[in-house]
Amino acid sequence: MGVLINIDINDFRDINPGERVLMGPGPSNVPARVLQAMSAPCIGHLDPYFLSVMDETQRLLRFLFQTENPFTIPVSGTGSAGMETCFVNLIEPGEEVVVCINGIFGTRMADIVRRLGGQLIRVDGEWGRAIDPEAVRKAVKGRSPKLLAVVHAETSTGVCQPLEDIAIIAREVGALFLVDMVTSLGGMELAVDSLGIDAAYSGTQKCISCPPGLAPISFSSGAMKALEGRNSPVVSWYLDMSMVQSYWGTERKYHHTAPINMIYALREALRIIAEEGLETRFARHQLNHKALVVGIEAMGLAMLVPESERLPMLNAICIPENVEDMKVRKALLNEFGIEIGGGLGNLKGKIWRVGLMGHSCCRKNVFLFLSALETVLKAEGANIKDGYLEAASAVYMET
Amino acid sequence: MGVLINIDINDFRDINPGERVLMGPGPSNVPARVLQAMSAPCIGHLDPYFLSVMDETQRLLRFLFQTENPFTIPVSGTGSAGMETCFVNLIEPGEEVVVCINGIFGTRMADIVRRLGGQLIRVDGEWGRAIDPEAVRKAVKGRSPKLLAVVHAETSTGVCQPLEDIAIIAREVGALFLVDMVTSLGGMELAVDSLGIDAAYSGTQKCISCPPGLAPISFSSGAMKALEGRNSPVVSWYLDMSMVQSYWGTERKYHHTAPINMIYALREALRIIAEEGLETRFARHQLNHKALVVGIEAMGLAMLVPESERLPMLNAICIPENVEDMKVRKALLNEFGIEIGGGLGNLKGKIWRVGLMGHSCCRKNVFLFLSALETVLKAEGANIKDGYLEAASAVYMET
Repeated sequence: MGVLINIDINDFRDINPGERVLMGPGPSNVPARVLQAMSAPCIGHLDPYFLSVMDETQRLLRFLFQTENPFTIPVSGTGSAGMETCFVNLIEPGEEVVVCINGIFGTRMADIVRRLGGQLIRVDGEWGRAIDPEAVRKAVKGRSPKLLAVVHAETSTGVCQPLEDIAIIAREVGALFLVDMVTSLGGMELAVDSLGIDAAYSGTQKCISCPPGLAPISFSSGAMKALEGRNSPVVSWYLDMSMVQSYWGTERKYHHTAPINMIYALREALRIIAEEGLETRFARHQLNHKALVVGIEAMGLAMLVPESERLPMLNAICIPENVEDMKVRKALLNEFGIEIGGGLGNLKGKIWRVGLMGHSCCRKNVFLFLSALETVLKAEGANIKDGYLEAASAVYMET
Repeated sequence: MGVLINIDINDFRDINPGERVLMGPGPSNVPARVLQAMSAPCIGHLDPYFLSVMDETQRLLRFLFQTENPFTIPVSGTGSAGMETCFVNLIEPGEEVVVCINGIFGTRMADIVRRLGGQLIRVDGEWGRAIDPEAVRKAVKGRSPKLLAVVHAETSTGVCQPLEDIAIIAREVGALFLVDMVTSLGGMELAVDSLGIDAAYSGTQKCISCPPGLAPISFSSGAMKALEGRNSPVVSWYLDMSMVQSYWGTERKYHHTAPINMIYALREALRIIAEEGLETRFARHQLNHKALVVGIEAMGLAMLVPESERLPMLNAICIPENVEDMKVRKALLNEFGIEIGGGLGNLKGKIWRVGLMGHSCCRKNVFLFLSALETVLKAEGANIKDGYLEAASAVYMET
């Protein structure tokens, strides 16, 4: 038949993304060490050396999740694949599932439950505020849901959901407790075992500062029992964790070819986290967040989320009136190489989402962002107060 | 709560997989250029530069698939995710689906159809032989299946399935024609448009010689119409191509965070293919395959698959009697750094699967493998004939 569809190779130049300061809702900047580990030679997915890499990655993930769950692995897809993995393995058609919804990612959970034929029980909350545990208690009254799902770090709004009270409710009604940790894992305290979490998932490109492509998950013994006791097959072959477990466990039974080099990268990113130490890392996220907020408020801008409900790694800043969202973000990107995020859904054009995640979370970036934002906003004619750098500096002096 | 679960960072050394000669059923060796492109700085999934990388990757994939299908993208998962993507988007519960089964991957297709509630119509064939189109014709007689699925390159046996006659049958009964090209794409002629294929999927780690982690797919206008006309939602949110299309198309609507660095790698691997040219590349696979087979047969060993049905990139060699499968494979790996594959299912312990895929497909590897195999088999007391290197050499001289 021959080659019918041709291309000109000269149309395609060497890859050259340049250097960005990644301060959006993810990905965050990836340390050179992680990129280097990722580019180690690819070997077979059943090679004895790679099997040892898998074991080490699991150990490091258990440390990060603060769990002894044997089944703690990176799913071969991005964070959203982690979300789907939890639901597709743990619920069956017709079962009641409670989903707390106060942003895009809770909404996505509900969409997945609907697709899987679950009986959705919605607990709706205001976007930009945490869900009131009393609303959850009210929703589950007299019911026996199979699973109760909540987003710990709502990336669309910057809200941190306290988990303790909701964990108690899940236990009381005998539901599996599922928590989305995509944005928070690796940036703030989150102990799977202490909190009694049955299923947790995350992504690699936020506070872990590894490229996107893997979804760390952890299932408790209760979750594994639910999986083993299913009446219907898991509708997804690719994400069927009963089979994936045979590969990551001691059997080493081939399921699908693992994303070898991505796992090298994750292992290195986790090693960097372990070297820093969890408490130091979490304190670093808290400190830079505080300095950013103090600087933003000193400028005369407002945060969307009340102080007690803010995530340290994702800061939702209200866009001042008469300022054009896209114009500011484009100027930050083109003039300073800084990427920040815009609002999603109802918050589109109303907030900026400024990430301080993992490797991107540092004093250098806080100062760069504040001064760049001032410059861009002043060029737009916005009214910016002085003294914000001194205010942010003072936060670092206090510690 | 503090850190309850601790690890000792000294347990984890620098990543160091060493160099393997990857001659198994995949992954194949990844060129240094691809590893280097993969380690370029990670940037945002909506960054203008990354959007241009996506467009270029789609153009290069259309060239490789030999198609003008606008929807030609890499799915954010490994080859098996590509298989699942095709079925989950194109069939609905209760619909008739024909699956041709002569190995592990046809079996996997049937498993996926069952999970999705499709009415499975099996066409079973002998493992190690191609499926007879007449068997397909018989199976579809009087039926109107939604989809007819076949594995072009059955990685578990080394069989190449001729597609022309089955394509005609699919057209006659009005079924979408789905082809698994995981192992063959990039190593032999495979023209999606000329063959009238409606849905094709592949993996990156075989003849494309990119690390595993992405599944290139292409949907025809007929497949897109079937997707748009569904009565039930796609059961997978992550793999719902109607939403993924909005991100890869002109809308640029966020769905999930793309695996940025993996896409850099794929783009570079595709650029290398375009530089070599498809016809040159396919001839290279054919030539090295021929030399390998001539050498193997000159040694006195036998191939599993009849000559006319062999894949060039995956060679199934019958294990001689009284030779221990694992002992030979371990010696090849430990003494020569060569990875080959064993048999799966009924063929376990009966065949070796020797890959000559993409970057791994070269004269150097053919000679290394033949001479290493001789050494290992002689050490095992097997009866090996001389003259096999001369026989293999002669194949290269002919051209």
